[in-house]
Amino acid sequence: MKIVDLRVTPIAIADPPLRSAYGLHAPYALRTIVELVSEDGITGAAETHGGERILQDFARVRDRVICRDAFDLARLEGEVAGSFEEPWGAQAIEIDRSQTYVLPGVSRLDVPLRLFAAVEVAALDLIGKSTGTPVAELLGGRVRDTVPFSAYLFFKHAGGGGARADVREDRWGEALTPEALVDQARTMIDMYGFESVKVKGGVLPPGHEIETMERLHAAFPDLPLRIDPNAAWSVETAVAVGRALAGVLEYLEDPSPGLEGMAQVRRQLMQRGIDLPLASNVAVTSFEVLPEAIRRDAVQVVLSDLHYWGGLRAITHLGRLCATFGIGLSMHSNSHLGLSLLAMTHVAAATPHLTYACDTHYPWQAGEDEILESGRVPIIGGAVRVPTEPGLGATLDRDALERGRERYERCSLRERDDEAEMRRLVDAQWRRVVPAW
Amino acid sequence: MKIVDLRVTPIAIADPPLRSAYGLHAPYALRTIVELVSEDGITGAAETHGGERILQDFARVRDRVICRDAFDLARLEGEVAGSFEEPWGAQAIEIDRSQTYVLPGVSRLDVPLRLFAAVEVAALDLIGKSTGTPVAELLGGRVRDTVPFSAYLFFKHAGGGGARADVREDRWGEALTPEALVDQARTMIDMYGFESVKVKGGVLPPGHEIETMERLHAAFPDLPLRIDPNAAWSVETAVAVGRALAGVLEYLEDPSPGLEGMAQVRRQLMQRGIDLPLASNVAVTSFEVLPEAIRRDAVQVVLSDLHYWGGLRAITHLGRLCATFGIGLSMHSNSHLGLSLLAMTHVAAATPHLTYACDTHYPWQAGEDEILESGRVPIIGGAVRVPTEPGLGATLDRDALERGRERYERCSLRERDDEAEMRRLVDAQWRRVVPAW
Repeated sequence: MKIVDLRVTPIAIADPPLRSAYGLHAPYALRTIVELVSEDGITGAAETHGGERILQDFARVRDRVICRDAFDLARLEGEVAGSFEEPWGAQAIEIDRSQTYVLPGVSRLDVPLRLFAAVEVAALDLIGKSTGTPVAELLGGRVRDTVPFSAYLFFKHAGGGGARADVREDRWGEALTPEALVDQARTMIDMYGFESVKVKGGVLPPGHEIETMERLHAAFPDLPLRIDPNAAWSVETAVAVGRALAGVLEYLEDPSPGLEGMAQVRRQLMQRGIDLPLASNVAVTSFEVLPEAIRRDAVQVVLSDLHYWGGLRAITHLGRLCATFGIGLSMHSNSHLGLSLLAMTHVAAATPHLTYACDTHYPWQAGEDEILESGRVPIIGGAVRVPTEPGLGATLDRDALERGRERYERCSLRERDDEAEMRRLVDAQWRRVVPAW
Repeated sequence: MKIVDLRVTPIAIADPPLRSAYGLHAPYALRTIVELVSEDGITGAAETHGGERILQDFARVRDRVICRDAFDLARLEGEVAGSFEEPWGAQAIEIDRSQTYVLPGVSRLDVPLRLFAAVEVAALDLIGKSTGTPVAELLGGRVRDTVPFSAYLFFKHAGGGGARADVREDRWGEALTPEALVDQARTMIDMYGFESVKVKGGVLPPGHEIETMERLHAAFPDLPLRIDPNAAWSVETAVAVGRALAGVLEYLEDPSPGLEGMAQVRRQLMQRGIDLPLASNVAVTSFEVLPEAIRRDAVQVVLSDLHYWGGLRAITHLGRLCATFGIGLSMHSNSHLGLSLLAMTHVAAATPHLTYACDTHYPWQAGEDEILESGRVPIIGGAVRVPTEPGLGATLDRDALERGRERYERCSLRERDDEAEMRRLVDAQWRRVVPAW
């Protein structure tokens, strides 16, 4: 099944002004759509992080993808890694690979894994479409027919995202108080039926975020809750939050910076008899950091992400590793469309050890920006049905893709920079400080 | 791709009187051939451990396999595990799962993994044959076109194995001295071109085995050497052997019993500045023991075995885990035919982190007993070519399979018992003692 073309299309999708410890979401999120075309004219597609640099990065590996058999992936992974040995090389291993200071999708150390992952997903979609097999089955078979996702609540400013002709309806309104977040939860659960709730914290002072979680717990006493301040809290603050919310949270996500911060929070909570699992996609973002994270007991739940851990098979490997070491497994999300949601759903279905509902930003994106022929992927009862159709189970709507590309060209954004956006719209002096509280 | 039939055929193959710390190989090795037939009449096949109990075990999961889609494997694995929760269940987790006291393929705790593994291999052969794809590609793609194997030397008595009409030519003769083992190495390397050498030790007193390795090193100074006494040595003896052979061995395999013994040998060698990796398929036989093995630094090279670790995908997971923790990966072997050799070759090709040549008993089996239409799988330059043909790359010779079944019926062996064979032919009082020296 020879690959004869690699198409890489940058798109922009409207994104509401969501807040996090990194800053503020810009009016558009940037994504990249990767397509592989086989010699018999079948197309496989994948979605990954966006912006200008990844386009240059794809150009660099293009010749390694074209004319390759779609099954020939393990060698491709090695070749892609080899293509990026400079300019950073061994020296750069000294760089902190974590997402403590850089946003997901921005670390240069992840580039080879992110490129390979996108090609792998597109190749598996292509193989699946060519052989009539869903991707979950190509990965070893599904253990569930639906994959649960969490309601993902954000403190936000008013506005639905986008600009000019692309301004999207704001179904949510401003939400900068605990009360407003409970309202947001209610709306989102009404719309999608979510059975667990995640709050993106690190935005309001910790006391207000504790209050937010307590109000959510009172409003939805049966739903598991999580909060993720993206390392915005000192160890002392994180321990105080953990103590306050011990009976309320299913896990506490990335409370403090680095493996050292996480390990200290864990140790101090355990010393107080509080066995609250700590989850991470900030301190723990790659296989290479796992031995040290495990040795220090710095993480009890890994938040996997197929986009930067190295693709779908890498996540199935991660699942086995977490099962082996008694570590929980959940899934991280970035602002994304349905193609990423489907890839996440297939691999979640094929990973027996997935022990928590996955995160998804999908409710924050607008139907106008979806690029699938079938339109928005339904979330019903808080879950996505695992497609039984070949490949990822969807086909690109080429007109919608073209509109996404035009949106990318019209908007001036070329790299995600939530800190700059925060300065532009909220506070001209704002800088991210780690930890902030 | 619905499975409409599961065929399980016990066979016996001639096996020479090879010695190990477990005792003596009987005149026949027992294997089981598993076939899955799809609704469109395509057959996938696999080879696993033999004997009577596994036939009963297969009968117990038969209904779960029939009518299932060949891709629906992850759920099958869970169901097979569920079918065997009793009679041992949680209580049996207390049992030592290692191969310190039981031979590979005999532990009842491994039954679900061994059944699933055989079905998985046959299913992937079936899928590959149906879609025109080699198994290595179904696993993620090959990173090598040939897979290196080691010459596997045994101290042995005279005889080629088999009985009556099945007595096989003894190409090797008796080999119970260091000199004879060097002759055996020379013959085997001449025939197959092996570029590394493994000795099955734990048979002669340790001083003679040290001498054997020294003579091999002198005769083949460029070839990596390994010795495996199957936990026959006390920690003190193992440390003495390790010190004597530090400059000669690429790794020392299972010198002493259990994780505790292995960890002590490692610690004492390291204290003497000897960083000789310890390999294991006796103390370490499953994912569940890896965290403790790693914590204690009891193993630096894992000897994978698709037959009891849970199949081909399980080995790719194990590869990623070993790569993550900086542990080497090699491959264990039992007496086997070409079907197992091909499965081992495909998964070795698709496992980037395989860091050593694999073991194989294949040179000890006779061409008359092979069950592939294409006959014996060639080993050239010490390596097996990774098939580019669909599935495992071979088809069963049904007449040869039938002869294997008849051989099974004629011979009285129904379970491997090297200790009984040792008493029968060598020493009526022999019992395995761990450690023996």
